[in-house]
Amino acid sequence: MPEHMTAAIDDGFDQNARDAVYRAMFTRRDVRSHFLPTAIDDDVLARLLLAAHHAPSVGFMQPWNFIVIRDIERRERVRDLFLAAREQELPAIEAEKQALYRKLKLEGICESALNICITCDRQRSKGSPLGRWHNPEMDLYSTVCAVQNFWLAARAEGVGVGWVSIIEAEALKRLLAIPDHVTPIAYLCVGRVSEFASKPDLETHGWGRRLPLPELIMSETFSGEGETQLKSTVARLNTVSAAPDTIRPADQGVAPAVPQREPPKEASALSLSSLNFDDASVNRASQAGSGTWPAMVLK
Amino acid sequence: MPEHMTAAIDDGFDQNARDAVYRAMFTRRDVRSHFLPTAIDDDVLARLLLAAHHAPSVGFMQPWNFIVIRDIERRERVRDLFLAAREQELPAIEAEKQALYRKLKLEGICESALNICITCDRQRSKGSPLGRWHNPEMDLYSTVCAVQNFWLAARAEGVGVGWVSIIEAEALKRLLAIPDHVTPIAYLCVGRVSEFASKPDLETHGWGRRLPLPELIMSETFSGEGETQLKSTVARLNTVSAAPDTIRPADQGVAPAVPQREPPKEASALSLSSLNFDDASVNRASQAGSGTWPAMVLK
Repeated sequence: MPEHMTAAIDDGFDQNARDAVYRAMFTRRDVRSHFLPTAIDDDVLARLLLAAHHAPSVGFMQPWNFIVIRDIERRERVRDLFLAAREQELPAIEAEKQALYRKLKLEGICESALNICITCDRQRSKGSPLGRWHNPEMDLYSTVCAVQNFWLAARAEGVGVGWVSIIEAEALKRLLAIPDHVTPIAYLCVGRVSEFASKPDLETHGWGRRLPLPELIMSETFSGEGETQLKSTVARLNTVSAAPDTIRPADQGVAPAVPQREPPKEASALSLSSLNFDDASVNRASQAGSGTWPAMVLK
Repeated sequence: MPEHMTAAIDDGFDQNARDAVYRAMFTRRDVRSHFLPTAIDDDVLARLLLAAHHAPSVGFMQPWNFIVIRDIERRERVRDLFLAAREQELPAIEAEKQALYRKLKLEGICESALNICITCDRQRSKGSPLGRWHNPEMDLYSTVCAVQNFWLAARAEGVGVGWVSIIEAEALKRLLAIPDHVTPIAYLCVGRVSEFASKPDLETHGWGRRLPLPELIMSETFSGEGETQLKSTVARLNTVSAAPDTIRPADQGVAPAVPQREPPKEASALSLSSLNFDDASVNRASQAGSGTWPAMVLK
């Protein structure tokens, strides 16, 4: 076998670079509450769109478009659609959760600097639907990959993004003059933020908990047992990240640059009581500077 | 307004960290051809799954499962499904592209170290479908976000990923014993690679071209004109990345660590003839070491 077939590649990602990619993922939040009135530079927005445009797409279809919405009156009408949709959705929520549902802040449409609707043109590869004959929904999935690239790039730029999914798609299409053959995939609120919360809002408010990852891993078939070693490794990653002697230096040595939602001690106690990933410690540690986390826990 | 409402946050991403996030996105590839027989450490695979598990999900639903498939006989049966599906899809491809379609390598099911099927459990939030009453497909989209996290983390770890979308979903469900209420979202080939191609395979082989991003940006409504400044900024980003005096140092000063598919001069000429992003120069420059790109072009 020729040497280049077995040689490890030098792909330009050292430990710090890998950590940065993980940090963007672990500290990304669905932002609703902490938008600032600050404008976003076109330079920054252009980079986020370039990131989205480099998502994978089925058959290199690149089915996405990006509608930038700044007009406040239009955004108020979108918010009205959200408010109406929330009232419609409420009865579908189980009774004991309805009071909490009403309290949750689920959008930042008018407070954010701007909105972006990312759409999928279903006809862009008409004639050569490579990879879509059996699974025509693949173009929708490609567009979601563009959304996730946008979101992660935004996190790295210190820009918050919130995805508004409580909305009636046909009404949104009329409001934004989106033609029949185009599907709106994500309506995003985008803006500078005062903080990135240490945990997902829905976790903080008790709507749900991070599921234990080992229980989501299966071997060979659905519900197939096995992968014991892999599951142990996953569990160990979480345990290390929650160990008090690992997170204490960041707790004591670094003054938080932004307000913390939970007192550190409370968050530590929480993290020790479960194998779930301790997002609070991630956020604190990441403020200690580039490279201190997740190198610290993800060797 | 209190100070913390207007202060810029110190979010732990310096220029090098931001560059790393962009580099993962711009050099990620849908890998089919360059898998090595090397095994993937459980430590690495655990980190990739942890990244996937930290994707956003509607109503904090976390609807995903991860089926790890290593058995080569099972993978051969999956490849048979692919081969049958490719024959079915071929007649849907326009006549002049069918010969090229037959030549394309579109999967690495058996050559990669392992396969992972990422699925979506449609019933996981039964009772409290926050964010899904109007758009029940949101859980599918959440699962795609997990796929994209996995893919980008893999790129940063030097692990290649290829998404096989030419497959009959019901047949795959039978083969992997996936129950009715669970949807397979992505069948992924995962493994160490000899190289990451400098461009998407479908671009290299002339199936398609990267679309000019400025033409995909709209203002306020679908097809709405405007955002002139933003479009100029996007175009300038591409132009700078393709300028010969910007990429020449990397061309001349750094021996490529991995074989290049296109001769550098050809790639440079190509990039100058269009506003499209020059992926080849990205790949070359990224090999010059962490932090030299995209800081170089994305100021």
